[in-house]
Amino acid sequence: MIKATCLACKDGSGKMMCTTINRRAVGPKDVHIKVSYSGICHSDIHTGKGEWGKKQYPLCVGHEILGIVVEVGSTVTKFKVGDTAGVGCMVDACLECEECKEGDEQFCSGPRGFTGTYGSNGPEELYPGGMTHGGYSSNIVVREEFVIALPQKMNVAAAAPLLCAGITCYSPFVKHGLKAGMQLGVVGLGGLGHMAIKIGVAMGCVVTVITTSPSKVELALGMGASKVVVSTDEAQMKAAAKSLHFVYNSIAFDHDIQMYLDLLKNQGTMLLVGGVPKGAMPAGSFALIGRGLRLCGSLIGGIRETQEMVDFCAKHDILCDIELVPATPEAVDVAWERTIKSDVKFRFVIDTAATLNPTV
Amino acid sequence: MIKATCLACKDGSGKMMCTTINRRAVGPKDVHIKVSYSGICHSDIHTGKGEWGKKQYPLCVGHEILGIVVEVGSTVTKFKVGDTAGVGCMVDACLECEECKEGDEQFCSGPRGFTGTYGSNGPEELYPGGMTHGGYSSNIVVREEFVIALPQKMNVAAAAPLLCAGITCYSPFVKHGLKAGMQLGVVGLGGLGHMAIKIGVAMGCVVTVITTSPSKVELALGMGASKVVVSTDEAQMKAAAKSLHFVYNSIAFDHDIQMYLDLLKNQGTMLLVGGVPKGAMPAGSFALIGRGLRLCGSLIGGIRETQEMVDFCAKHDILCDIELVPATPEAVDVAWERTIKSDVKFRFVIDTAATLNPTV
Repeated sequence: MIKATCLACKDGSGKMMCTTINRRAVGPKDVHIKVSYSGICHSDIHTGKGEWGKKQYPLCVGHEILGIVVEVGSTVTKFKVGDTAGVGCMVDACLECEECKEGDEQFCSGPRGFTGTYGSNGPEELYPGGMTHGGYSSNIVVREEFVIALPQKMNVAAAAPLLCAGITCYSPFVKHGLKAGMQLGVVGLGGLGHMAIKIGVAMGCVVTVITTSPSKVELALGMGASKVVVSTDEAQMKAAAKSLHFVYNSIAFDHDIQMYLDLLKNQGTMLLVGGVPKGAMPAGSFALIGRGLRLCGSLIGGIRETQEMVDFCAKHDILCDIELVPATPEAVDVAWERTIKSDVKFRFVIDTAATLNPTV
Repeated sequence: MIKATCLACKDGSGKMMCTTINRRAVGPKDVHIKVSYSGICHSDIHTGKGEWGKKQYPLCVGHEILGIVVEVGSTVTKFKVGDTAGVGCMVDACLECEECKEGDEQFCSGPRGFTGTYGSNGPEELYPGGMTHGGYSSNIVVREEFVIALPQKMNVAAAAPLLCAGITCYSPFVKHGLKAGMQLGVVGLGGLGHMAIKIGVAMGCVVTVITTSPSKVELALGMGASKVVVSTDEAQMKAAAKSLHFVYNSIAFDHDIQMYLDLLKNQGTMLLVGGVPKGAMPAGSFALIGRGLRLCGSLIGGIRETQEMVDFCAKHDILCDIELVPATPEAVDVAWERTIKSDVKFRFVIDTAATLNPTV
């Protein structure tokens, strides 16, 4: 087995501790990655605090993982030592069901579904301790099929969040038919929203950002948005009515979607990526029928799509806007608190290789 | 002007009276149709009783109109006297906006939107009295672009409801990618639902009907459904979980859509065509995101699509299951009452030409 140093939640408080975990020895199909950077996603916090189900601790989270290949299994063909490699939200799936065959491993309908990068149960021989541990860690061993190849120039902290935030924009854009020249609205200017602007602009769309914060207007325009609508300004919202082909809705708290549906052109599509609890979307069917609107949920993206997204971002020089934090329990605790308060522009990334204490 | 005999709602009670209305004289682009049959759609009742907005009376409703061309304008090319012709839910639109150019006149974004076949305001010179009157009538004059051509064999009462019920199934099926070999679920076995079975089967789909009424099992199988799931039977619903690519949801009263979403395969699509009030669909965004589901509203269909649907139904010998009623106020009053109670298999059609009193 391979010992890895990591930052892990010590309990349901989500507070970090520095500890060690075991990774499996590198099997014939495995890629062993020394982690350079690991992004901080809000899902880490929900999972780490047990808000999405009870977990066992210590639990090392993180699913925006970027690093360098240090060892490959005997049958690995896609990677060699020294390559830049990424791991996103999944580390395994059946690869045999209808969904996996279509490249949608995130919807794997095999007996176990997909294996999440952290906090998923799995066989002891693959995941020592019986549970997966994520990227707030010095090393990770992942089967080749779930490792993403990145060009060397992308071995930078600002590329790490692409592995989750980037694909969560790119996948629904491609899947639901966003095309160059279309009007794209982005609601919720956070980690996902700011990627949606950049990827949308690179796809040739005219991007309108809808935000409650007049303070974000300049920021959004700086990222390539053509227009910013302040949603608390009734006149601005009225002027923007029926103007958008797509609305990318990344708001992750209870909200009435009707005001954003009103911005869609007839037969427009709202892409939903922010988890909102049952009962919190009070738009009746008339809202969808009368104008032929579509409401499409989307969950990250498949592996093939993730590779495509990384290649697209490399080609268009798209990176995230980040704040780098050292790999100490104190620094990550603060980053989590600030993430919860949406006080981050726009993603924290842990500077793992440079700052994680190797001697715990 | 052309005088037409008709059955019209005398007031907001929706009760019928026999009266006369005026149609405009046949203009160069107009087609004058002698109505053979007119289907009774639930929308007639909502509109006639003022449930969808206040109306002026007397109001002649009906938008499933089938008849014979008795006169054409000087520039009409698609029709000649003696042809079988149909009129659906629209009699005009701008034909210049983005939506009209795409053939989606039902979403016309021109200054006036589309003109509904009945109860829409319009210029006095086109619609004497300033409002459109529908198909419960001896004659109607409609501009050529909004008249559907039918083969002579379809001048039968059972074809009339295709003009609304038929297109309300066909349009979303085509638009949202229903394909041969797919699993189609139909929820709500009424006028729309029974057409969805027939059209779905003709498109090569395997159709499952989901119903609360065990009494409808035989009926559904007789129409070509492969399977019927009784929704009050938990075991049956469980066995059908995640089995359908599409669910055609034609329920028009408050309901929790979650139990039907559960029947969709990952990344499946629910087509919504039944108007349900705001707040009545308590499925949160997690329901859509976790499995990548789509919720698509759909409103009738465009004229080109309606023509395509009629041609498709003619080719596959698809007609509605109907009960014929004479064109008397008493008979139509009873038919409306029974429609409200869903006591009809599956559509009432008024036997206009044969029974409407020509001398009021």
